[in-house]
Amino acid sequence: MTDDGQRPPARTRRLPRAVRERQILDAAVQVFSRHGYHAASMDEVSDVAGVSKPMIYAYLGAKEDLFAKCIGREAARLLEAVRTGVHAELPPDMQLWHGLRAFYRFVAEHREAWTVLHRQALTVGGQFAGEVNALRKRAIDLVAALVVSAGTRQGLGEAAEFSGPALAVALVGAAESLADWWLDHPDVSDGVLASWLMNLVWLGFNDLVEGKVWRPQ
Amino acid sequence: MTDDGQRPPARTRRLPRAVRERQILDAAVQVFSRHGYHAASMDEVSDVAGVSKPMIYAYLGAKEDLFAKCIGREAARLLEAVRTGVHAELPPDMQLWHGLRAFYRFVAEHREAWTVLHRQALTVGGQFAGEVNALRKRAIDLVAALVVSAGTRQGLGEAAEFSGPALAVALVGAAESLADWWLDHPDVSDGVLASWLMNLVWLGFNDLVEGKVWRPQ
Repeated sequence: MTDDGQRPPARTRRLPRAVRERQILDAAVQVFSRHGYHAASMDEVSDVAGVSKPMIYAYLGAKEDLFAKCIGREAARLLEAVRTGVHAELPPDMQLWHGLRAFYRFVAEHREAWTVLHRQALTVGGQFAGEVNALRKRAIDLVAALVVSAGTRQGLGEAAEFSGPALAVALVGAAESLADWWLDHPDVSDGVLASWLMNLVWLGFNDLVEGKVWRPQ
Repeated sequence: MTDDGQRPPARTRRLPRAVRERQILDAAVQVFSRHGYHAASMDEVSDVAGVSKPMIYAYLGAKEDLFAKCIGREAARLLEAVRTGVHAELPPDMQLWHGLRAFYRFVAEHREAWTVLHRQALTVGGQFAGEVNALRKRAIDLVAALVVSAGTRQGLGEAAEFSGPALAVALVGAAESLADWWLDHPDVSDGVLASWLMNLVWLGFNDLVEGKVWRPQ
């Protein structure tokens, strides 16, 4: 309150729309990850965000739109994090390693975002599954490019182009599956998780059971 | 029609309950895989099965129960197929190979069952996701036992027990992801699919880009 008693309380202060939208989306990701799409309530989003329900509807639409926007934002963030982590000039194993590190670091730092992207969006299905599948597709394309280029460099041209995309699908599935397992085993560090997967897909069981270990150079 | 005009038409002939139930479940798997849980109608199940709706309700319950029973039956069949494919006396790579072959053969022969188990059950969520997760858990336990025993045989006791279950989660995720991709790429044979995955997880990229290939002995 100022001396003249006219200033509204802090939580309704005028903030730029972009800031409000971020507050709302942050709150929505929290609420959706906790309760799932169906059980989540706009009242709780409003409470957590400290933004009135009418303002949420005006800025981001109804629950359905809000959920789609959460998925869109978190999918873009995740892809950006992985892209930034990978450097094309590195050898293929180091590119993969940095990509996996970036992925698991994102999941560690944005556990709620991952829960919404992976668990909630899939179980709701419908239009949301489409958005998540588009994300998977882009992640798979990233990995496939890496696999094909690594194979081509070794003169495996056609064979690599044929099986590369399928191997990328397998690898992305393995990485997701492990991230999902991780939600229930938070005691394992993101580095350990990434190195398990790296050892599996880079060296393979054959080398692993002989005691070989892959390590970043 | 017999001479006395009393025999009912063929489709309502009295059949043992077990036979009827199988017909209904076969039809339901078809219908659910085609339309998804929400859009599937009991009328269509009744048409495809050639069994009246009241009989379906009496034998297997409402749509919800029917869907749960489809998942239960197909999950048990899939696990049984994989278990039968694997022989504990074989070396670990051959056990894994036969397990993967059996899995992809099941998917090839029961494409609709896999669609219901993997795509439909997950997108419906709720009580059905629980049943599918129980199936995944059993598949993961199977693979984990294989990985841990292979590692332990090589004297990696504790390390294998620590990372084995996580590697199994990754492997099952890779196998599922590839099976899902396969629904949209039916031109690839089940043997090729299994050998891609085998090469990935047994040899690893490092060996693959050097042109090495894993082959069943």
